[in-house]
Amino acid sequence: MNYFEESLKLHEGKVGKIELISKVKVETRDDLSLAYTPGVAEPCRKIHENEENVYKYTSKGNLVAVVTDGSAVLGLGDIGPKAGLPVMEGKAILFKEFAGVDAFPICLDTKDVDEIVKTVKLIAPGFGGINLEDIGAPRCFEVEERLKKELDIPVFHDDQHGTAIVVLAGLINALKVVGKNIEDIKVVVNGAGAAGTAITKLLLSSGVKNLIACDRVGILYRGMKNVDKAKVELANITNPDNIQGNLADALVGADVFIGVSAPGIVSKDMVKSMNKDSIFFAMANPTPEIMPDEAKEAGARVIGTGRSDFPNQVNNVLAFPGIFRGALDVRAKEINEEMKIAAAYAIASMIKEEDLNEDNVIPYALDRTVAENVAEAIKKAAIESGAARNQE
Amino acid sequence: MNYFEESLKLHEGKVGKIELISKVKVETRDDLSLAYTPGVAEPCRKIHENEENVYKYTSKGNLVAVVTDGSAVLGLGDIGPKAGLPVMEGKAILFKEFAGVDAFPICLDTKDVDEIVKTVKLIAPGFGGINLEDIGAPRCFEVEERLKKELDIPVFHDDQHGTAIVVLAGLINALKVVGKNIEDIKVVVNGAGAAGTAITKLLLSSGVKNLIACDRVGILYRGMKNVDKAKVELANITNPDNIQGNLADALVGADVFIGVSAPGIVSKDMVKSMNKDSIFFAMANPTPEIMPDEAKEAGARVIGTGRSDFPNQVNNVLAFPGIFRGALDVRAKEINEEMKIAAAYAIASMIKEEDLNEDNVIPYALDRTVAENVAEAIKKAAIESGAARNQE
Repeated sequence: MNYFEESLKLHEGKVGKIELISKVKVETRDDLSLAYTPGVAEPCRKIHENEENVYKYTSKGNLVAVVTDGSAVLGLGDIGPKAGLPVMEGKAILFKEFAGVDAFPICLDTKDVDEIVKTVKLIAPGFGGINLEDIGAPRCFEVEERLKKELDIPVFHDDQHGTAIVVLAGLINALKVVGKNIEDIKVVVNGAGAAGTAITKLLLSSGVKNLIACDRVGILYRGMKNVDKAKVELANITNPDNIQGNLADALVGADVFIGVSAPGIVSKDMVKSMNKDSIFFAMANPTPEIMPDEAKEAGARVIGTGRSDFPNQVNNVLAFPGIFRGALDVRAKEINEEMKIAAAYAIASMIKEEDLNEDNVIPYALDRTVAENVAEAIKKAAIESGAARNQE
Repeated sequence: MNYFEESLKLHEGKVGKIELISKVKVETRDDLSLAYTPGVAEPCRKIHENEENVYKYTSKGNLVAVVTDGSAVLGLGDIGPKAGLPVMEGKAILFKEFAGVDAFPICLDTKDVDEIVKTVKLIAPGFGGINLEDIGAPRCFEVEERLKKELDIPVFHDDQHGTAIVVLAGLINALKVVGKNIEDIKVVVNGAGAAGTAITKLLLSSGVKNLIACDRVGILYRGMKNVDKAKVELANITNPDNIQGNLADALVGADVFIGVSAPGIVSKDMVKSMNKDSIFFAMANPTPEIMPDEAKEAGARVIGTGRSDFPNQVNNVLAFPGIFRGALDVRAKEINEEMKIAAAYAIASMIKEEDLNEDNVIPYALDRTVAENVAEAIKKAAIESGAARNQE
């Protein structure tokens, strides 16, 4: 199938992929008097008396804003808020289909951090959560950080944390397959943008001790010049021996390669320089950092990509629907580190020990049971970590 | 029925009255590849090449934001954005039910004009139109004026213009019933807030020559002190003889009373002082300026209210769904005076000459054929006035 042509056809003449429908009927005068005036005044009054009632009488508690500035859309880059809309609509339908979460695209006509933060805060009363999407790095870090601080509803940048959670899930299972321990491995993360940064931080929270982050400029190290604040921070928490060099240097003796970078930049020789039973998550789109067959020939044991036509697809749809389902259900005030790690273990656990093998470390993206499991894990972790406001 | 109690029950445990659903299926890997990545990249590219394609490939062209700051909700006043949400959801479902327009509530956590204008502009890329709702006067005038100027999609403050259009429709028919001419009548509009101001302006555009606007301070006249800019402007375009006095003074010899003011403020004696065959639109909620039976006893001939339990209900649902349907269909850049007047005549024309009588000058609020008719009239007027960008 030619996905591009078929997708155009699918999108044409439909007036979009999302539709807003009523959950109540409006056929008689009485219906109208209950759903609208004069009856509707009563739920309004109840919310005015106690703001928490907004969760009882409105859609807020099940509604997530999918917010973008259109600056880092798929592999297309900065195409603007209107051109980003088809992706946001796609995201919205995945939220609904996989987890029953109502999600609505908000495409912002600004790339200014202050304006993004301000706008999201001002529209927040109607939403139960904020999913940031396709906002470029390093801007996305500040936007997320400030919104998390200033809002009392969960804020989650999916390009960062969704990807990180699924990678961690895959790594948990891959380590079982190769029989290595998360504390003992050497990991190289290539690409220090939104996803790479979040992956690095989540792996460090999950027990990885030796992690080297690389970017176009090579290995990030303490003392390097001419890099932005986000990369300096990354250098501060990684690279324990503070080595310098390029990606090839970093990979010597490594156990795991995680690429969110560019097609074809890893050679077979680089794979050969790694430790035995190496693990690859080569997620450059549409062409991975190294093609799975080449990596395998050079000695890699477990290989995942972003693509659905190879085994072990890293697909965020395994994470974000269940994460928001769980967070909304317990009215979590945030999605914290404990919740993310719990989500990764929940995804990993979807593959039974007996089914685990090199080509099966990440569940199938369309497995609808994953979101339920993730939601349960998120709820439990939210309650245990104190993020839940509602434990019913 | 106790609407308040029943309405609470209707709203409880439902997680809101609106739901976002997918128009496309997401069952197989191929479905996902078309609605989302990688296929979705192609409609994104097409929009990036030509912004107008956003109407072809996304929901923008059928999507209206119902925007409020929660400052003038129903008769409840300034109850805030969260407490206003049940009303905005109700509005959204009416848009969908009556005209197939997808509408989404945006409740803003600010009452600052600059912030409201800025926020609506920044979220505008995803919307085909903006319906302002329950924003207090005089702030609403500046918000609407600035947004109309700065956005290329229709902006419509329903509390102003929706009400004005339905009142004009009722007046057109009422004048037929009493056999008077719109140019010859003396009209008193009581209440110079959002609705009163818009009614005044629309009646003047529609041929009324002699109109007196009153407010709590009495008759608005040129030279009056201590009133806001909006009321000074209103005094400038009304009251041709520049008379002074109170509501009772204004009503002497008047043909039409239009009240968007307070319960019970018109006495039978005031009705008696008016011309023969007087017309009343007494829309104070929930109790009219004078009860219909009292007005009738005192000599009024046609009486309308805001209530569904009396004849001639002035209900905005007769106007806004069809107005946006028509405006979206021709991709109107605005909703101008010609379009509003056309909508009023379309609503009035729904009652056939032979069915016209004192108790039947405004169509039944739930008559689903009204919206279609209004949409057709809006499209025609938009094309003729040059507001339409698409005449397909």
